[in-house]
Amino acid sequence: MSDEQELGITESKQYNTGEWYAEVVQKAGLANYGPEGMSGFIVTRPRGYALWESIQNYLDGEFKKTGVQNAYFPLFIPESYLEREKDIVEGFDPEVAWVTHGGHEELEERLAVRPTSESIIAPYMARWVRSHRDLPLRVNQWASVVRWEATETKPFFRTKEFLWQEGHTAHETRDGAWDETMTRLSQYRSLYEDVLAIPVLRGAKPEHDKFPGADTTTTVEALMPDGKSVQAGTSHYLGTSFAEAFDLTYTTEDEDEEPAHTTSWGLSWRSLGALIMTHSDDQGLVLPPTIAPEQVVIVPIWQADTQEKVLEYAEDIADELEDAGVRVELDARDERNPGFKFNEWELKGVPVRFEIGPNEVDDDVVTAVHRPDGESVELDRENIAEAVQEQFDEVYAKLYAAAEENLEENVREASARNEILGTIGQHGGYVKAPWCGDEACEDEIKDQIAAEIVMVPLNDEDAEIHDGEDCAVCGDDAEETAYFAKSY
Amino acid sequence: MSDEQELGITESKQYNTGEWYAEVVQKAGLANYGPEGMSGFIVTRPRGYALWESIQNYLDGEFKKTGVQNAYFPLFIPESYLEREKDIVEGFDPEVAWVTHGGHEELEERLAVRPTSESIIAPYMARWVRSHRDLPLRVNQWASVVRWEATETKPFFRTKEFLWQEGHTAHETRDGAWDETMTRLSQYRSLYEDVLAIPVLRGAKPEHDKFPGADTTTTVEALMPDGKSVQAGTSHYLGTSFAEAFDLTYTTEDEDEEPAHTTSWGLSWRSLGALIMTHSDDQGLVLPPTIAPEQVVIVPIWQADTQEKVLEYAEDIADELEDAGVRVELDARDERNPGFKFNEWELKGVPVRFEIGPNEVDDDVVTAVHRPDGESVELDRENIAEAVQEQFDEVYAKLYAAAEENLEENVREASARNEILGTIGQHGGYVKAPWCGDEACEDEIKDQIAAEIVMVPLNDEDAEIHDGEDCAVCGDDAEETAYFAKSY
Ligand SMILES: [Zn+2]
Ligand SMILES: [Zn+2]
Repeated sequence: MSDEQELGITESKQYNTGEWYAEVVQKAGLANYGPEGMSGFIVTRPRGYALWESIQNYLDGEFKKTGVQNAYFPLFIPESYLEREKDIVEGFDPEVAWVTHGGHEELEERLAVRPTSESIIAPYMARWVRSHRDLPLRVNQWASVVRWEATETKPFFRTKEFLWQEGHTAHETRDGAWDETMTRLSQYRSLYEDVLAIPVLRGAKPEHDKFPGADTTTTVEALMPDGKSVQAGTSHYLGTSFAEAFDLTYTTEDEDEEPAHTTSWGLSWRSLGALIMTHSDDQGLVLPPTIAPEQVVIVPIWQADTQEKVLEYAEDIADELEDAGVRVELDARDERNPGFKFNEWELKGVPVRFEIGPNEVDDDVVTAVHRPDGESVELDRENIAEAVQEQFDEVYAKLYAAAEENLEENVREASARNEILGTIGQHGGYVKAPWCGDEACEDEIKDQIAAEIVMVPLNDEDAEIHDGEDCAVCGDDAEETAYFAKSY
Repeated sequence: MSDEQELGITESKQYNTGEWYAEVVQKAGLANYGPEGMSGFIVTRPRGYALWESIQNYLDGEFKKTGVQNAYFPLFIPESYLEREKDIVEGFDPEVAWVTHGGHEELEERLAVRPTSESIIAPYMARWVRSHRDLPLRVNQWASVVRWEATETKPFFRTKEFLWQEGHTAHETRDGAWDETMTRLSQYRSLYEDVLAIPVLRGAKPEHDKFPGADTTTTVEALMPDGKSVQAGTSHYLGTSFAEAFDLTYTTEDEDEEPAHTTSWGLSWRSLGALIMTHSDDQGLVLPPTIAPEQVVIVPIWQADTQEKVLEYAEDIADELEDAGVRVELDARDERNPGFKFNEWELKGVPVRFEIGPNEVDDDVVTAVHRPDGESVELDRENIAEAVQEQFDEVYAKLYAAAEENLEENVREASARNEILGTIGQHGGYVKAPWCGDEACEDEIKDQIAAEIVMVPLNDEDAEIHDGEDCAVCGDDAEETAYFAKSY
């Protein structure tokens, strides 16, 4: 038997969130830690990778519908290229893994393992763009990146190597690039809200926390059950600074030469971390039916004299569901009892379980059990493929509602420094407070309680600053509303 | 205007194959060379990457239908892991790119950028496998690998970094592992023959040219128009040596502990190189309709007084084809004349061109032109979506037949050393010769003419060795039939 099946979850989500999370990841067969000598790396097992493939398929489809093409740029970036955009060097310098030798030879110039690819993609986009007719240009790559962070590993949330997509686009105008930035942010929101059952907030990062060299960094933030915020995807309007550093210019209709306005946007397997963390419980993984590798597991329950009819009935249903495009697993193992199977499939996060015994066969029904709350529903055998879709919708709605409730209950307001500290200390979550825009005021909170400004909301009327409001920290005039939170 | 559109192909496929290939790759917009300081690397542009995505989609689908799951293993492998399988170290040592620094710190143990992943995957498979019930275990990853070869770069054929898939499986028995090895080789053959329109030969590599540590390396070989063979995909039966080195064992039904039999198999973007090289010509890229990003381009031909009716008719056809799932491009650019468009789409390899002028509109027809040979066919407007599929089949058949003819004409026999040298020197292609199995006999040929034994055929009755046949090189008893060829 494989190691992950030996035991159920022993840690508590509520009291030991970190340990519980690590246990779910391993026991549900999603990932293992990397080998000795490679702390900070993980091995993504087939069950974990299948979830990432679903995320990829969804986003890749959305991107392609909106004019994005995939490409592939080298894994390595020469040090001199990294240095051409000074903010990039400064931003990533402490986190770069360096290749210094090829075979037995020392390299003349050391090569960075890509921490992000702006500085190798921009020079090529510069070669491909001549005139305004070549714009907008949109490329995306699905790749792995390496950032040599020293902090503790948390599978999917924080690893030295991670999988992501990075999109890079060039436009004629600021407006074009800004629309692009927002389009991608919306697609990230849609991934979370429509596929992963996680509501998110949209905002901009404060000036001092932008992507190195960016004009504006926008973000979707998801609130985890432990009260911390996850930066769940970012979309950057880079202005013309990258274009200027890398000569990415175009000729206008009037034959003038102008720098392009560029964007970049990325979403990583951290989305998987948020998915696991948000919905799972002390029985193990919980997945929404949208993304679960198996949407239904059928567990037949028989005695010797009923085995044949129960199995036949169950197989028939499995076939019908499969034909209807439902991802279904019939667990007909003889050597395991139903209770063992229930536990195992709960651990693995299958959203709906069908229990089928002799009574179900006799009554022409199926007992369906929802993974998140154990609710049990009797379904008619007829039209089972339609009925199961309704169950999926219900399970999705339950997961979304729970996450939404957590979010809504955990956005609080504060108008003074101690109120920010006290509220986050007691409840976690987000604290909205008027803010002068000065990094020093964030530092004061950060030093006390390790919370930071995770975003300033976009298009949120509630968050508008009115005349006479003061910064909750220093008392100077407030410029914007800041969302303070602890974060991953 | 982008750089690749500035000129058509100037080199000759027949007389300057290498330069011609490099020109097609760049001018058709498939790839660029890497930046200064990174010779041996390429940038894969969207048009090139779309071809790779098609290859991925096909193979990934075939793999999943036959029990393979995707996973993802770290990009880096600790040096001590590489050293656990001595043949692997020796085989890849001169080609490894080494990471020595993370951020500002020197690493305690240097890390290899994966040249292949057996030595990091096997130890994890060992953790996941306990009993015979966990077997067979099949994992695959789509990833990039780095091999620091010093030879000249040829985009897709020979690059320091390349994209590939690597499958790794474990089985109870030799038979199970051998069947797996053959299943993957068949899927590779099918990719070439059914999708890329390239016939291949299947064989085994000679003992001295096996994958390091393998029991048997099998290969599909494709003959390029310049008479050289491409190793187009390999599938290795690894025996139990990797399992023994990495403790990948299982308990049998009788509770005995046995080492698993393992396989690995890989196919890289070299398949793209073979695709481009095989079918393209002095007008540029030629693609089979199975894989072409645009299967049909519609070029409307109008005068001022016919523009409206021609365009309307063309748009109508484009819509109808698109609805039928055909990948169609309507080139309605006003600023370019039809001749320019013909050349551009020929350069880009679109397999079928529709020419639509006022005559076609009046007669309710379409003029279809086949990219490979310029054959022109008049199709009825009615049922155009069905008719175009027939044209696709015809174009595919033409491409396949031409490649097959090249292959069949270029397998020759020889029974003496000078005959091998003379035949390869004059014609290129494959020379079949009886061989004693001794590497020294291959070396003699290699030293003279840089040809090697690319394979020993599998299941080929024509190639059976009969009593009394002698090695064509040394005259000792022959053990098998060797295919000598120059190779990429
Ligand atoms: Zn302040
Ligand atoms: Zn010999």
